[in-house]
Amino acid sequence: MDSLEILKQEIDQFNKERDWDQFHSPANLAKSISIEANELLECFQWDEEHYDINEVKEELADVFNYCIQMSNKLNFDIKEIIEWKLAITAKKYPVEKAKGKSTKYNKL
Amino acid sequence: MDSLEILKQEIDQFNKERDWDQFHSPANLAKSISIEANELLECFQWDEEHYDINEVKEELADVFNYCIQMSNKLNFDIKEIIEWKLAITAKKYPVEKAKGKSTKYNKL
Amino acid sequence: MDSLEILKQEIDQFNKERDWDQFHSPANLAKSISIEANELLECFQWDEEHYDINEVKEELADVFNYCIQMSNKLNFDIKEIIEWKLAITAKKYPVEKAKGKSTKYNKL
Amino acid sequence: MDSLEILKQEIDQFNKERDWDQFHSPANLAKSISIEANELLECFQWDEEHYDINEVKEELADVFNYCIQMSNKLNFDIKEIIEWKLAITAKKYPVEKAKGKSTKYNKL
Repeated sequence: MDSLEILKQEIDQFNKERDWDQFHSPANLAKSISIEANELLECFQWDEEHYDINEVKEELADVFNYCIQMSNKLNFDIKEIIEWKLAITAKKYPVEKAKGKSTKYNKL
Repeated sequence: MDSLEILKQEIDQFNKERDWDQFHSPANLAKSISIEANELLECFQWDEEHYDINEVKEELADVFNYCIQMSNKLNFDIKEIIEWKLAITAKKYPVEKAKGKSTKYNKL
Repeated sequence: MDSLEILKQEIDQFNKERDWDQFHSPANLAKSISIEANELLECFQWDEEHYDINEVKEELADVFNYCIQMSNKLNFDIKEIIEWKLAITAKKYPVEKAKGKSTKYNKL
Repeated sequence: MDSLEILKQEIDQFNKERDWDQFHSPANLAKSISIEANELLECFQWDEEHYDINEVKEELADVFNYCIQMSNKLNFDIKEIIEWKLAITAKKYPVEKAKGKSTKYNKL
């Protein structure tokens, strides 16, 4: 089976066992993604070069987990939405204009 | 091919074409994940029930995209780290104690 | 009059005129603080040395604004809570242990 | 003395004693503001009505603290930048258009 499908099912199962689905409104999941993203950011708070790789792994996994939960909740096909948004971003940042620059599209 | 593998390659290709890899240090990616997570949160800022599903889709896709980039950068196997962290969380929140509760593990 | 008192009143007045108080639950203000904090973070997303000082000013002001709103909402005395928390932090990070180190207190 | 001036000095003193100024680049402070903002958000993660008022107080104080540090670092006059931004926001959200609505200015 495809790995995204497996993860989707494992995470669903995890929450079902704990009866946690009741807490997982889209808004609560959005807050959770931001909260976990900032635990990840904390790994790089004062020193961006020397970080604890295991903490990074844990926190990044938590962000992924909540993102998958939100996708489940809203019936998003993860691969589809990422590719769809990549196409939008490609139009905002055409190779010939954006190459080698970190400038935001509205200032390109 | 597995969908996570496809996404990994598509996103790598996207950045290579734009020569953006130079900006994508783990710390910059961590900031980016938090920034995109908060654009997602903005969809639910004043009203948690009525949100623009397309905006949610776009912003969630951006969070996923940067998470995949960080995994590429640090050579994480996405499925592996999510399952590894899920096992850690399962120990912190055993079914019999956590069922039906949103309490944090240190207060369970 | 004290500047914090003036700011408190000006911001209250601003929201009253717009009838915005109805949206400003503590939870919505917490989301807003995080959202604005990340617009501030975006000023430093790809380049931490060269930032637009006016954008920094605008976004930092927005964070302050929502923090003052939350203090109003919950009847916090801003000076009091900052000094109270500073005393707590001082105990977690005694000068002799913390001097010159960015280590988190639980690893000191 | 004005309370903002007192806070500015107390926080400066706190950091000087610990020799922490070396870590407090504007970018690191921006990360810190976001990290603390999300510890504040965590108070409202699963339940927006029942929160621990002391935790809210602690986390909000931390956000304020780092915001004051950034103002010190960049020589911002806190009262001035908040009032300056309030005037900008007032133009984006004129009373007659924005009254009673949480709509973002670009959709008003």
